[in-house]
Amino acid sequence: MKHRVITISREFGSGGRTIGKKVAETLQIPCYDSELIQKIAQESDFAEGYVKEVDESSKGGFLASAFSSSRAFGPTNEDYLWEIQRKVILGLAEQGPCVIVGRCADYILQEAADCLTVFIHASMQYRADRIVREYGERQESPEQRLREKDKRRAAYHRFYTDMKWGYAQNYHVSLNSGELGIDRCVEILRLLY
Amino acid sequence: MKHRVITISREFGSGGRTIGKKVAETLQIPCYDSELIQKIAQESDFAEGYVKEVDESSKGGFLASAFSSSRAFGPTNEDYLWEIQRKVILGLAEQGPCVIVGRCADYILQEAADCLTVFIHASMQYRADRIVREYGERQESPEQRLREKDKRRAAYHRFYTDMKWGYAQNYHVSLNSGELGIDRCVEILRLLY
Repeated sequence: MKHRVITISREFGSGGRTIGKKVAETLQIPCYDSELIQKIAQESDFAEGYVKEVDESSKGGFLASAFSSSRAFGPTNEDYLWEIQRKVILGLAEQGPCVIVGRCADYILQEAADCLTVFIHASMQYRADRIVREYGERQESPEQRLREKDKRRAAYHRFYTDMKWGYAQNYHVSLNSGELGIDRCVEILRLLY
Repeated sequence: MKHRVITISREFGSGGRTIGKKVAETLQIPCYDSELIQKIAQESDFAEGYVKEVDESSKGGFLASAFSSSRAFGPTNEDYLWEIQRKVILGLAEQGPCVIVGRCADYILQEAADCLTVFIHASMQYRADRIVREYGERQESPEQRLREKDKRRAAYHRFYTDMKWGYAQNYHVSLNSGELGIDRCVEILRLLY
């Protein structure tokens, strides 16, 4: 039987991870976010031997190598990490119902789980205020950092899934957390589960 | 006081109009769809004198003239119709809370009403089945007609609003009616109103 899984893609700073955690709490199912999946991947059997220091968001990391000529000579570290994370995500979804935030889980699980695919977004202003307030980020030009993050996420998503990130058609439901509020987003997802 | 208005943009065949009507019924507020707005516009005082046979979806109509050189010599019939419909929509929103389907109402009302902006979409397969079943359209290649309609709507929207149609970021909420079902879409909008 395919388990019911909520996958959440989100713009940086939109509160997608918070929404995921709250929904999971309400539904009493586990929530796996990007950091946790990366941690599981690095500790997994798959990872042994070939994962080095790879981080999608590390300086120059993904974008630099994805579009450099290195891939012409075979898979990059990011490709290995993608493959390991893919296996981890498939494994988690097989264990039972859950919420998965990020890591293109919607794409990875399209055949393997009964997914509710979600995209959380918000205005630049809302996200800028939020990352300064909630993440304690420095107040200088948060917009510039957000644009950079958005660009990386879109490129990562596009590269591995060939889907356009942020297009409504790619998701069952897309919500503007800034306009609707975190709690109403949680309520809607609970209702749709 | 700005009235609360639900604006619904939708892919052809996705059930956006049906959802709009059902939500309006539940909330006991009026629902204005494209046809009704066009009718009001044509009967309005604004229209006297200069509206001829204009129809966004008539053969060759909008696309042909929007991108022809005719606009270089001044506004086209579509531009006049746009302006009249704009005034009609502003007038309707001023009268009280309502649902407005289509006609770029989200863009037109962004300063004039307290809007909940909605985008309804669905897979090609769902929409193709639906237009044959519900609209009694002929069974031959509905997908081709849908692609044509989608293209026209996207171009119309892009031309008059300069916003990309179908991007989640443009709406407060985007729903896949095929996956969620018409009734759950109605329930969510009622909840968010």
